[in-house]
Amino acid sequence: MKTRGYAALQSKAPLTDFEFERRPIGDRDVGFDIKFSGICHSDIHQAREEWGPALFPMVPGHEIVGIVTVIGTKVSKFKVGDRIGVGVFIDSCKECRNCKRGMEHFCSEGMTATYNSLERDGKTVAFGGYSNYFVVDERYAVKVSENLDFAGSAPLLCAGITLYSPIRHWEVKKDSRVGVMGLGGLGHMGVKFASALGAEVTVFSHSASKAADAKRLGASNFVDISSDWPKMHRKGFDLILNTVSAELDLEPYLQALDTDGTLVIIGLPGKPYAINAGTMLEGRRSISGSMIGGMAELQEMMDFCAEKNIVSDVEIVQPNQINRAYERTIKSDVKYRFVIDASGF
Amino acid sequence: MKTRGYAALQSKAPLTDFEFERRPIGDRDVGFDIKFSGICHSDIHQAREEWGPALFPMVPGHEIVGIVTVIGTKVSKFKVGDRIGVGVFIDSCKECRNCKRGMEHFCSEGMTATYNSLERDGKTVAFGGYSNYFVVDERYAVKVSENLDFAGSAPLLCAGITLYSPIRHWEVKKDSRVGVMGLGGLGHMGVKFASALGAEVTVFSHSASKAADAKRLGASNFVDISSDWPKMHRKGFDLILNTVSAELDLEPYLQALDTDGTLVIIGLPGKPYAINAGTMLEGRRSISGSMIGGMAELQEMMDFCAEKNIVSDVEIVQPNQINRAYERTIKSDVKYRFVIDASGF
Repeated sequence: MKTRGYAALQSKAPLTDFEFERRPIGDRDVGFDIKFSGICHSDIHQAREEWGPALFPMVPGHEIVGIVTVIGTKVSKFKVGDRIGVGVFIDSCKECRNCKRGMEHFCSEGMTATYNSLERDGKTVAFGGYSNYFVVDERYAVKVSENLDFAGSAPLLCAGITLYSPIRHWEVKKDSRVGVMGLGGLGHMGVKFASALGAEVTVFSHSASKAADAKRLGASNFVDISSDWPKMHRKGFDLILNTVSAELDLEPYLQALDTDGTLVIIGLPGKPYAINAGTMLEGRRSISGSMIGGMAELQEMMDFCAEKNIVSDVEIVQPNQINRAYERTIKSDVKYRFVIDASGF
Repeated sequence: MKTRGYAALQSKAPLTDFEFERRPIGDRDVGFDIKFSGICHSDIHQAREEWGPALFPMVPGHEIVGIVTVIGTKVSKFKVGDRIGVGVFIDSCKECRNCKRGMEHFCSEGMTATYNSLERDGKTVAFGGYSNYFVVDERYAVKVSENLDFAGSAPLLCAGITLYSPIRHWEVKKDSRVGVMGLGGLGHMGVKFASALGAEVTVFSHSASKAADAKRLGASNFVDISSDWPKMHRKGFDLILNTVSAELDLEPYLQALDTDGTLVIIGLPGKPYAINAGTMLEGRRSISGSMIGGMAELQEMMDFCAEKNIVSDVEIVQPNQINRAYERTIKSDVKYRFVIDASGF
């Protein structure tokens, strides 16, 4: 089906109007009108080819929500008129151990990314959510509650799951002492999820101006990292979520972990971290990585959000404001996520 | 009580005959004749002040086994004639959360090391196991089975627990895929424990000559790390135990971890490790530190060793061979641990 969207026609080019075809509906496919599509910092990295060779024209976007308009003959999860969401991947091998246990994002053959990738036929370029229509295998889509603010629910599909997954995996619960490094599109979701679970949340940020916002989002404490905070917070945390992509010294954060505490890396800095073995040995500390989540967990999060009324704080933009929104995203000048109104495509 | 041993009289000095007093037996104390005392590489680091300022004269030794000769009025765990073992620490605060849950080695006030430390009165210098007699609070001693080779059981108190603890904490079991980096005093214990639990053990070593020994100790596979092994072993391990203190690139070992795999750092290199965030994110990998174990776990290990007939492979030396043994330890010229025959003091 003919689809209108926005694309980077070549590396580093500003995004512009772009028309392309979506595949016809297969037996297990769902077609839907996109309503909102979030802008993720990784869209910018890929459109500018900062993460290695990319495919152009590129239609970015992997935080997608819409309304189902057509379903294949074997679709069981959705009906026409349903709210639907698609995140960072649209396919996987379905056969490996990780796919079979609902960890499709760690598919041993590699997941098929929602854009800037080839579909599993090895030739069809996948176009993402900066567009007005989408087709997806129902296995790779989630149901979105009617109760949630629709624009604010789009970023749940990437920013949301990126924080929800580690918060669940490392079993955050009432009175867990959780640190969140950075209060941006990712960090603000971490504060919302951890505080909804009853944790005592501390935000680490270099922007003292964000202290009030941190409290509003659910944090109990705010640490201005330009202060001499490491002395006060030694061994004070069970889990620290590092959402910062900038290069930084992890040592004071590791020392802030209590016995058996874990620092989870979510952001991707350009250089390796320097890690002191001695700091890890003391108190059996851990550093772990985490990256989005599988389909089962994505649906679990959407249901949790519906129950707790959690969405992302968003600023809605029109398609012709995407390039400007990219500039502002790079400067962290957004509270806390841009979402494109897809009716403008 | 008058005690004879060997001490470094000052930093970097060769060890020499030394006589000193052990405290009288308190209510909860056990006095015992030391029979064997292991030589740990950390003894050398401390006697040479390579880990920061140290206390001299220093009687090293924290892998100690002997026979009980006297007990205090309130001692319940031991009787005269029992085999007894003492490891890396001899006291802790007993009141903090970690002490109360049997993790005295992570005591929030710091454990009292068996030597090169002040006892909790803040003034009595602790003298270690290179001597013929010891006095210890029974809480900080373990029972040693009569069934175990006595000399070989001494290194269990440090080298043994250093490997046993992470192997248990990360739940190694039948068919776990476990890698052991380095086949020395630590590594050979890791092979014995993991294989006794039914794991498939792979030894990583630069000494191809150790392949036969690795198999004899229980390993299924041997990887000569000078080969192009990373291609063959990508995502092949659940747990990798890094017993190597030399500086090395962890990247290929991290890539050898499967989903949710953990690399445990046990050795202490001089420089920080360089860790790529992307490698951690892929498959939710972890790096953790581990350091000896608590008293409950130490006794559990001694019982496990009795059940499985596991001891360290040792070479017995006399006190006047200690300095020579130090030189050979530094060159890794020992299979796999030197143990001093305390009857020679």
